Amino acid sequence: MSGGMETSMNQELRKDAFDIARAAVSAAGPDAAVERALKNCTMTGRVVLAAVGKAAWQMACAAVRLLPQPPAEGIVVTKYGHVKGDIPGVTCYEAGHPVPDENSFAATRAVLSATEHLTGQDTVLFLLSGGGSALFEDPLIPAAELKDITRQLLACGADIVEMNTVRKRLSAVKGGRFAQWCSPAGVEAVILSDILGDPLDMIASGPAAPDPATAAQAQAVAEKYRLNLSAAARACLAKETPKELSNVHTQVIGSVRELCAAAARQCRALGYEPILLTDRLDCEAREAGRFLADILRTHAGSGRKLAYIAGGETVVHLTGNGLGGRNQELALAAAPGIAGLNACVFSVGSDGTDGPTDAAGGIVDGDTLTELKARDIDIFETLQNNDAYHALKAADGLIVTGPTGTNVNDVAVALLG
Amino acid sequence: MSGGMETSMNQELRKDAFDIARAAVSAAGPDAAVERALKNCTMTGRVVLAAVGKAAWQMACAAVRLLPQPPAEGIVVTKYGHVKGDIPGVTCYEAGHPVPDENSFAATRAVLSATEHLTGQDTVLFLLSGGGSALFEDPLIPAAELKDITRQLLACGADIVEMNTVRKRLSAVKGGRFAQWCSPAGVEAVILSDILGDPLDMIASGPAAPDPATAAQAQAVAEKYRLNLSAAARACLAKETPKELSNVHTQVIGSVRELCAAAARQCRALGYEPILLTDRLDCEAREAGRFLADILRTHAGSGRKLAYIAGGETVVHLTGNGLGGRNQELALAAAPGIAGLNACVFSVGSDGTDGPTDAAGGIVDGDTLTELKARDIDIFETLQNNDAYHALKAADGLIVTGPTGTNVNDVAVALLG
Repeated sequence: MSGGMETSMNQELRKDAFDIARAAVSAAGPDAAVERALKNCTMTGRVVLAAVGKAAWQMACAAVRLLPQPPAEGIVVTKYGHVKGDIPGVTCYEAGHPVPDENSFAATRAVLSATEHLTGQDTVLFLLSGGGSALFEDPLIPAAELKDITRQLLACGADIVEMNTVRKRLSAVKGGRFAQWCSPAGVEAVILSDILGDPLDMIASGPAAPDPATAAQAQAVAEKYRLNLSAAARACLAKETPKELSNVHTQVIGSVRELCAAAARQCRALGYEPILLTDRLDCEAREAGRFLADILRTHAGSGRKLAYIAGGETVVHLTGNGLGGRNQELALAAAPGIAGLNACVFSVGSDGTDGPTDAAGGIVDGDTLTELKARDIDIFETLQNNDAYHALKAADGLIVTGPTGTNVNDVAVALLG
Repeated sequence: MSGGMETSMNQELRKDAFDIARAAVSAAGPDAAVERALKNCTMTGRVVLAAVGKAAWQMACAAVRLLPQPPAEGIVVTKYGHVKGDIPGVTCYEAGHPVPDENSFAATRAVLSATEHLTGQDTVLFLLSGGGSALFEDPLIPAAELKDITRQLLACGADIVEMNTVRKRLSAVKGGRFAQWCSPAGVEAVILSDILGDPLDMIASGPAAPDPATAAQAQAVAEKYRLNLSAAARACLAKETPKELSNVHTQVIGSVRELCAAAARQCRALGYEPILLTDRLDCEAREAGRFLADILRTHAGSGRKLAYIAGGETVVHLTGNGLGGRNQELALAAAPGIAGLNACVFSVGSDGTDGPTDAAGGIVDGDTLTELKARDIDIFETLQNNDAYHALKAADGLIVTGPTGTNVNDVAVALLG
């Protein structure tokens, strides 16, 4: 096969890759996902819309457009810079993330006030997305003490489960307490998940999910790390969080599972056999890239058009001071393994950002290694310096989408043409 | 499901895992593999058997048992301690590995002498396995200079292709020259591959394989690194190696591909759907383990009995001073991801050894994490200390087979019950 032919075949694969990435991110995005979810919601009486999280504005937009009539009251609480315009009947707040600030508290109080005094006929449409832990907070102790306790927990090496066990009890809305507050009104919780495995009590600290941890466990954590607590904080730890919430109906939408399923559908539409490897990918980014390349090299020459799909959230260990992100590292690391093949590997963050870069991810094909060598770029050294961005930029390997308004982890696809 | 029930289901999975490991290693072993290969060999005239490599003794045993009559002459060249007894009509030599020594040279000269003056009717049955580079060597320059050139190449950072390009030209048997020497006799090369992708010119430096590199390339390497060479060495570099060998018929047997195929057959026989991911696995061991666990966790609850197979040779980066090996690290790293599942992950070296331990590999199941926690063993810390051996030992997770007499990389299998 001639070099020119290779290149044009790889161009075709790249075109397919971009189609697949677009289809996956769009299906997992708030608009399509909220639309699917609303069909399964029962909304009676007075409908209050409360949208919280990094995707709150976009979720609220989609919902208001689809509701038969505007909500009786509507509130969006999202990150600074994430409100993109007015939504009829909805008040939008921007607040601190990842550290809650006064605006977080004020916006949360507005939500609590809008959902007070509802009846059993009424409905709270609660649209939740990642980032809600900081954006949606009404602390039961002074904010300064809450901050100090978080600092103590971090300093003593408490794990995330221990941190949450304590912090849920210091909040009027976390650990199922928001849904409890809305009672007897029904809560239709529509959750855009950004945590692998969709643990409802973890996403935004679970305002509408029963808390599996007990007061006794919270007190044990305080004891174990000898936390320095005020009497008020101590009293909070002793108080139980809801263990059952009969007024809540929860739908998880647009999770990484949906992202992978949508990628698989598009792969099939383009003539590939999709093979879902995992939607729980959590290993080192560059090693995942090598593994995917190994898979492609094994099946190259089988005559089958294959698409291996791996969703999740890989990790990157910083060993240098270059520019990049986990998706870019995954893609770049796959380049040597697929060199010379009619193959392509891409990885993309569904939120449209990957590390501190303007790219959403990276893409490599069977020619990328040669192109990088021609520019005297060594992939191993580049990865050691965490500088995937510049290497991929040189080899036409950046995927740039801009912010997508969603945040459901990443998807990597390895294509064999 | 009760704990007891879980345990007994995991016991069943473990039993299957050991069956699969045994079947795979045995099918990829010299006996079965040599038997299959001999059926496709044409052996006429005077038959000289030359077996070289770490599996030479066992391959020669199998061949002599299967040949209709003893070879006219037979020679085994293997590593110290690898001759396990007499073979009728065969002289066995033990020699230096990984650094060739005087015994390597003497044994090689014996092979050359036995294969001199053959006719076009005669046959050399050449049984080659890993380790042959050091064991089978007849240097064209003094051994001391050969050693010095190797040292220079290592010191200047030459890659393995550059090293081989130079070294093949300094040898009377490497780079296809042994087969050339045997000409006009036919050479039936039966090769037990220990290199991913079975590159014939790389396995034992390719005594019976055409050399793809040219003299010009060898001289360019010498120039690039400004190697300090004698006039004799310089003359060697200028001399071409065979680019075509019409007297050779090559069969690659018992490669990692065979190892994976045999594992798949046994999985199917035990009721699992085998899915071959790759036979080229070459990423970090612990990350491969996590990836495999992510795959199992994704498909748990699908109601299917699945077996994901990944063969190859992972790498381990030493960050501690514990005891372990790549197969043990892979298995241990999978334990958190499959915790609580009716699942099992094992990885085993086909040669029966994994790192500097008495184990061939490791195995974990859905209970392993709990068992380790009960013993206060932290998996992350254990891996940081490269101490998988002791952790697995505590959780009944070592696979011990003893030396198997073969060496065709590793196979990892992830089972969902």
